[in-house]
Amino acid sequence: MTATPPLIDALQYCNWSERIFREIAAGGVSALHVTICYHETFRETVLNIERWNRWFERFPELIMPARTGDDVRRAQAEKRCAIIFGAQNCSVIEDDIGLVEIAHTLGLRFMQLSYNNQSLLCTGCYEAEDSGLTRMGREVIREMNRVGLVIDMSHSAERSTLEAIAASERPIAITHANPKSWHPALRNKSDTVLKELAAAGGMLGLSLYPHHLRGGSDCTLEDFCAMAARTAELIGVDHLGIGSDLCQDQPDSVVEWMRTGRWTKETDFGEGSKERPGFPPQPSWFKDNCDHANIAGGLSRAGFTNDEVARVMGGNWLAFFDNSFGKISDG
Amino acid sequence: MTATPPLIDALQYCNWSERIFREIAAGGVSALHVTICYHETFRETVLNIERWNRWFERFPELIMPARTGDDVRRAQAEKRCAIIFGAQNCSVIEDDIGLVEIAHTLGLRFMQLSYNNQSLLCTGCYEAEDSGLTRMGREVIREMNRVGLVIDMSHSAERSTLEAIAASERPIAITHANPKSWHPALRNKSDTVLKELAAAGGMLGLSLYPHHLRGGSDCTLEDFCAMAARTAELIGVDHLGIGSDLCQDQPDSVVEWMRTGRWTKETDFGEGSKERPGFPPQPSWFKDNCDHANIAGGLSRAGFTNDEVARVMGGNWLAFFDNSFGKISDG
Repeated sequence: MTATPPLIDALQYCNWSERIFREIAAGGVSALHVTICYHETFRETVLNIERWNRWFERFPELIMPARTGDDVRRAQAEKRCAIIFGAQNCSVIEDDIGLVEIAHTLGLRFMQLSYNNQSLLCTGCYEAEDSGLTRMGREVIREMNRVGLVIDMSHSAERSTLEAIAASERPIAITHANPKSWHPALRNKSDTVLKELAAAGGMLGLSLYPHHLRGGSDCTLEDFCAMAARTAELIGVDHLGIGSDLCQDQPDSVVEWMRTGRWTKETDFGEGSKERPGFPPQPSWFKDNCDHANIAGGLSRAGFTNDEVARVMGGNWLAFFDNSFGKISDG
Repeated sequence: MTATPPLIDALQYCNWSERIFREIAAGGVSALHVTICYHETFRETVLNIERWNRWFERFPELIMPARTGDDVRRAQAEKRCAIIFGAQNCSVIEDDIGLVEIAHTLGLRFMQLSYNNQSLLCTGCYEAEDSGLTRMGREVIREMNRVGLVIDMSHSAERSTLEAIAASERPIAITHANPKSWHPALRNKSDTVLKELAAAGGMLGLSLYPHHLRGGSDCTLEDFCAMAARTAELIGVDHLGIGSDLCQDQPDSVVEWMRTGRWTKETDFGEGSKERPGFPPQPSWFKDNCDHANIAGGLSRAGFTNDEVARVMGGNWLAFFDNSFGKISDG
């Protein structure tokens, strides 16, 4: 690990633009895990990578593609931001286990086994019944373990998540969620899940998405950081990071796509409601990539030591990347 | 370059099997440029890469995927064969220039701008009219130059080939063909093309495919090597390598796919004929990957020095790989 750990946010899906890339630089963010797939097929996900390739070509002084923890260190040294691709769903691999390695070769480093619905691999957190890992799910976990593609269970259901933690031979991640005991959203996680996750060496990225926060958009920085402190006591500070779920500048059509994809002709409001169907406003203290400093300050005031703050703000994710992004024999 | 240059064959499309991989090892072949696309779409080409990934997983002691010249050196040191992917057509990038970089990331290092027919990029050698590079063709050449994907004009028509040599800022290749002055097949190349190719730093891989040989399957090793010697005089020995076009163990259905793809409902006999529609038999002195030694011996007897033989049998290709497979700034 470098002397000063890099600032890492392990989940964002902004409406990327030069302005946002400059904010990322101004905020000193050295690595972002960005979503390149919600419901996209393999070919559609490749189109999203092509879009990133054009941004990498256009803004080489601001961003760079990342494959490893060392790429993050290089980005930090060069004051750029390392972009790590992730999929919030397994639609990217379609029904083809061979696409796990192909996607990894193209830079994918996180993949959720399901989004809110049942997938070919496991159950999502919005289904009435959670039947756990499927036959293909178990095969895909083994293949993800082999190539170094991290299993992310952020949107998956409880039993599926516990089975994935048990089935995976490598630590897994919940890149963006909070404890259900703090705020009982469907997307937040039970203490059981959080403890099993950490016991298996996994990582939790704390979410700043209002629907995951107690009080929603009005959640205070103090309450969020007190929750972080209690979570650190529950699972250990080494298993805690940030996965803000920031969706800056996105039009509401994007949250509609996230929720309904092509699986329904009806409107599904997901975590929203008919009255509030769009993206909720961010809390005043976390609106863009310059606001990570607010969280770091809040964590200090909540009792985290300087070293612990640095670990939660990026050091823990960097160590996790080092252990997770390659073949086991590589390390 | 290592002390002893590796043995490299810059074009094969065998019906790959453990037996052939073991022959490759027995023959001491350190690198093969293998075809993964004739008429396949992007997604279908990815399926072919998936098939190779399974072979890499199954036979790690025999073969390995290669991205760079140094990978070839590593393969040589470890007595394995470095597998370099190539496309004999531009169908792999469909109508999407962004797929050039994606294909390169997946390991593609050669792409023909056209197979026998007109493509979106240029004209193939079987068309009646050769209209040269298309608008997209010029854009794709620039993008291939940028990412380090080698332009291969083996199956392209004369004017298109000359225009590609002129338009490309980096040396290009004709991976598998012979001089038309020796054997006037449609697929063989004029002295004008060969001289322009070499003047621009390009490489010619001499073909062992019977339809490209004077006398076909009965061509003698002596005649082939005398042709090689005359070609070396014409374009310089540094621009000469082997691209055998070996299609070992393939059923005739494969040559039908090569010739007709999905572009016609009729039968196109290509270089064959109604009487001899299938793969022609290989010359007795080049039937599999253990026979490269015969060619090396024949070149010696035709007057090549030991150093020249080593360069033609692989050293020249290795130097070309070093200069061609990365971004210009990488080297």
